[in-house]
Amino acid sequence: MEYDFKALAQLYKNALLKDVIPFWEKHSLDWERGGYFTCLDREGNVYDTDKFVWLQNRQIWIFSMLYNQLEKREDWLKIAAIGANFLAQHGTDADGNWYFALDRAGNPLVQPYSIFSDCFAAMAFSQYAMASGESWATEIALQAYNNVLRRKDNPKGKYNKIYPGTRPMKALAVPMILANLTLEMAWLLSEETIENVLDMTVREVMADFLDRDRGLIYENVAPDGSHVDCFDGRLINPGHGIEAMWFVMDIASRRHDATTINQAVDAMLNTLNFAWDVEYGGLYYFLDADGHPPQQLEWDRKLWWVHLESLVALAMGYRLTGREACWDWYRKMHDYAWSHFADPEYGEWFGYLNRRGEVLLNLKGGKWKGCFHVPRALYLCWQQFQALS
Amino acid sequence: MEYDFKALAQLYKNALLKDVIPFWEKHSLDWERGGYFTCLDREGNVYDTDKFVWLQNRQIWIFSMLYNQLEKREDWLKIAAIGANFLAQHGTDADGNWYFALDRAGNPLVQPYSIFSDCFAAMAFSQYAMASGESWATEIALQAYNNVLRRKDNPKGKYNKIYPGTRPMKALAVPMILANLTLEMAWLLSEETIENVLDMTVREVMADFLDRDRGLIYENVAPDGSHVDCFDGRLINPGHGIEAMWFVMDIASRRHDATTINQAVDAMLNTLNFAWDVEYGGLYYFLDADGHPPQQLEWDRKLWWVHLESLVALAMGYRLTGREACWDWYRKMHDYAWSHFADPEYGEWFGYLNRRGEVLLNLKGGKWKGCFHVPRALYLCWQQFQALS
Repeated sequence: MEYDFKALAQLYKNALLKDVIPFWEKHSLDWERGGYFTCLDREGNVYDTDKFVWLQNRQIWIFSMLYNQLEKREDWLKIAAIGANFLAQHGTDADGNWYFALDRAGNPLVQPYSIFSDCFAAMAFSQYAMASGESWATEIALQAYNNVLRRKDNPKGKYNKIYPGTRPMKALAVPMILANLTLEMAWLLSEETIENVLDMTVREVMADFLDRDRGLIYENVAPDGSHVDCFDGRLINPGHGIEAMWFVMDIASRRHDATTINQAVDAMLNTLNFAWDVEYGGLYYFLDADGHPPQQLEWDRKLWWVHLESLVALAMGYRLTGREACWDWYRKMHDYAWSHFADPEYGEWFGYLNRRGEVLLNLKGGKWKGCFHVPRALYLCWQQFQALS
Repeated sequence: MEYDFKALAQLYKNALLKDVIPFWEKHSLDWERGGYFTCLDREGNVYDTDKFVWLQNRQIWIFSMLYNQLEKREDWLKIAAIGANFLAQHGTDADGNWYFALDRAGNPLVQPYSIFSDCFAAMAFSQYAMASGESWATEIALQAYNNVLRRKDNPKGKYNKIYPGTRPMKALAVPMILANLTLEMAWLLSEETIENVLDMTVREVMADFLDRDRGLIYENVAPDGSHVDCFDGRLINPGHGIEAMWFVMDIASRRHDATTINQAVDAMLNTLNFAWDVEYGGLYYFLDADGHPPQQLEWDRKLWWVHLESLVALAMGYRLTGREACWDWYRKMHDYAWSHFADPEYGEWFGYLNRRGEVLLNLKGGKWKGCFHVPRALYLCWQQFQALS
């Protein structure tokens, strides 16, 4: 692979518009009941009809974002609308909290225990409001955003099983959510709010969750950023850390803050070195920072989103800094990801490989994999290489 | 391997008394703070000091049971006591509900969300009360037993995330718990209570959870025993089903009910045929009854307890029925389990292998593996082969 950024931009554009988006357009739409099927086998056949609210919102977001950013295609807006209308009708309880799962018809199956459901709802309805101009969508987005702000200090609410006080910890996910959401909702927020939230979240991630000595991003730390010697406190989630680093790069680049960009690139490169499987290639899903056995039995699986977020982070890191290490790692990641996850025969990418890189689950979508990481990453990589060319 | 039942009895006895019990005696005892360390690496070094209440109770149970059933060794009683005293002091909240996890000193970490914590407490303190003669231990056992009865219709209580009414299901674990507990508490219960509970639970397992047409035990079914076409409703947990079948055989043999014994043996054999990995050997951890991708990413791992419970079920099935299929399967399971999980070099058994049978986590104990399935199965297999010889 040479430095042919134009060809890379074309590769990502084609994969997005001729492979991945058509897969979801063809197989995922529930025209009868509304919303989307996400449990799709390799060929796109529906094997389960439950509707998981994270994934419903994420698909609304993708189609609205493409409409807003790329091209005003009426069919994209229509696809976003069948999800948005379904969720507007069925997605929340009487208090406006977002359920985790619904059945095909929209009846609630799993209670609103996850702040991420509200987070993805805010993202989805904000993009959809921008695309459709519907004021009811703006209202839903703002209500979900306020849910997130209200819930951020106790994201699981009454479903939180942690005993208070014994061993307080905070999670990387919370500042990540806030940063992400604030960028998504920027068109509805004041400049001052945006700047304050971004300042706060970037500082928290880079000061508390990033261990400068080890160069690793921890998933959970004590409130003061120190380490806690327990399973959760030792947990490294490389894909999540790397995703956080491109969020930080993206924010820092808007502010022309080269120091923070380079810190984020350093952390990303350290994480890649730490988490790359030298025997079989690919990035581990979970690791213990101190080399102890992790509690997650799936720790050595190779997951699609981990590798796609790494491609985005590396392409962005290279575009912003020109550092050779980014390019070397990009090539390595590109070769692994495109040869193991992509499935040009049937479209979309496989989600779950075993450690050796063999397909573990013969699916394109499920309870946790929907229309989100693949198209978002393809879109972002396309943008990076277009800028580079 | 010939029909040398005497040699097999000796093998299991030696493994129990010269390998596995000494491993826990040597490495797991926290003389300083009380209770047990369960996070032990291959060699027995402690890598995490948190105390998981399931495993604390299960170790109390094992040492009390050995004292009650095998030999009145004072050191076994003393080991049971350091767990029992620790948990009597720290194990429950003010209302007597059993926490899920404590830190090394006994401070609560995870709330009492699991009915199994109460269940294992009832088992542990019942055995310990019998061993020690302490009336406070009997009181704790009875209180935990009443917790289980109170919680059985909503085992997770306020931590239950399932939305009520949309898609009611019941779990195999609940009748299994009740049957198991009733046998454990038999010395404290009336004959009538025992018979009623055993009648009810065996009938429920064999009529509702066992699908006679497919010969498979489902993990979750509708309240009337019909199937529900969703991830949880399609879930097969072969180790759990096989464990349930030896519980049923054990109960039925006390009642000289050959019909039920043979039904349980049939279901066990069908489950083994369904869940055996013909390519690499061993039993899968989770399967989808209809062949769809399971939601559990760890579905193809080979777990110690699945294989140990199968050894118990097969040895018991063979002892009770003399059916050749039990013996053929026993030999196959014996060869796989002893060659892959046992670790005579350092003692105890590995817990987690990948699909190919290679060690996945280099540990002898963790958050979910403690001093329980290995010694219990070794003890029970020893008893079966002693009876056969």
